[in-house]
Amino acid sequence: MTPSQSESARLDAQMAFLMEADRLKAITRATRNHDGRFENSAEHSWHLALFALVLGEHAPEGISVERVIRMLLIHDLVEIDAGDVPFFGEVDEAAKTAEETAAAERLFGMLPQAQGADLLALWHEFEANETPDARFAKSLDRFQPPNLNLASGGGSWDDYNVTHDVFEARMGPKIRHGAPALWDWLAPRVKAFFSRR
Amino acid sequence: MTPSQSESARLDAQMAFLMEADRLKAITRATRNHDGRFENSAEHSWHLALFALVLGEHAPEGISVERVIRMLLIHDLVEIDAGDVPFFGEVDEAAKTAEETAAAERLFGMLPQAQGADLLALWHEFEANETPDARFAKSLDRFQPPNLNLASGGGSWDDYNVTHDVFEARMGPKIRHGAPALWDWLAPRVKAFFSRR
Ligand SMILES: [Ca+2]
Repeated sequence: MTPSQSESARLDAQMAFLMEADRLKAITRATRNHDGRFENSAEHSWHLALFALVLGEHAPEGISVERVIRMLLIHDLVEIDAGDVPFFGEVDEAAKTAEETAAAERLFGMLPQAQGADLLALWHEFEANETPDARFAKSLDRFQPPNLNLASGGGSWDDYNVTHDVFEARMGPKIRHGAPALWDWLAPRVKAFFSRR
Repeated sequence: MTPSQSESARLDAQMAFLMEADRLKAITRATRNHDGRFENSAEHSWHLALFALVLGEHAPEGISVERVIRMLLIHDLVEIDAGDVPFFGEVDEAAKTAEETAAAERLFGMLPQAQGADLLALWHEFEANETPDARFAKSLDRFQPPNLNLASGGGSWDDYNVTHDVFEARMGPKIRHGAPALWDWLAPRVKAFFSRR
């Protein structure tokens, strides 16, 4: 869209996007909330944004909490077309990346042009996992589920037969990458949980 | 808590708060998502934050989108203790306010002292509905449900036997208060919906 478009036409596009986004509430994840119900990707995105709001001081280098929150609010929208990929499941990475990229282009392409391009760039930044903001956001996305598993007494670890060694090997590097202080806090708690089994 | 507390002790408090916040996912609202399922207050908070992110340009005066997003991320946490109040339901306002204030003090009181005080002040600002940021945030909170009702073909309007006149009288002023441009966009769409019945 161009700047000459009226406010009403911009709103038409923005509201179509926001009502399409409503569908994220119907995307089910592999993680369970602490009442045992499978988490959906919309409430997950809210929870992560709240994690960023509260835990920003623990980022390892200068980050913008506001940009991290924005990233986390939009990071899972692609699942509307592409679905959620359980972390401990199996997936064809290349096919999944292509599917998610197409989804991002379709969804953010519903918005007025410059606004959609900004959000598409923010989503690519998150996915690339290289800037401090993206690294912290990605690490929060990995840090929240084990905390839900601890709260629900096993959760997706049980559903996927995850052992402590597998958890440490696969999740440790991903959380440490952008949030070493959060990993240092979490690791002994997960260890204690598995050792009590 | 005091600044001399270790990072680990701050994290203990912050994580207790964040895991308590998980309970917002189990608070059911009167509004239905466009698939007909009743919305919960966590996914609602995510949706509203996304509304703020996308619609900030339509605020009537200078606002900080980032502060509005923060407000919306925390605005419903009190429902963990106090429950949701359907807009078209009946309620004892004074009792509800006392209950929600106690909830806010308990929940934000779980955080390190200065951080909790900041979020409590932000929640009070939202509730007071006087600053431009709070007015826009409150108006988004009123603007989203009718859009879901339009998408689901009636939703809470049918559940509460809401007529077009009642909608205009009770919702119009609340949305116009902080977001007149959004009301101007919405009002004819709602009118057309009711006139087709
Ligand atoms: Ca995800």
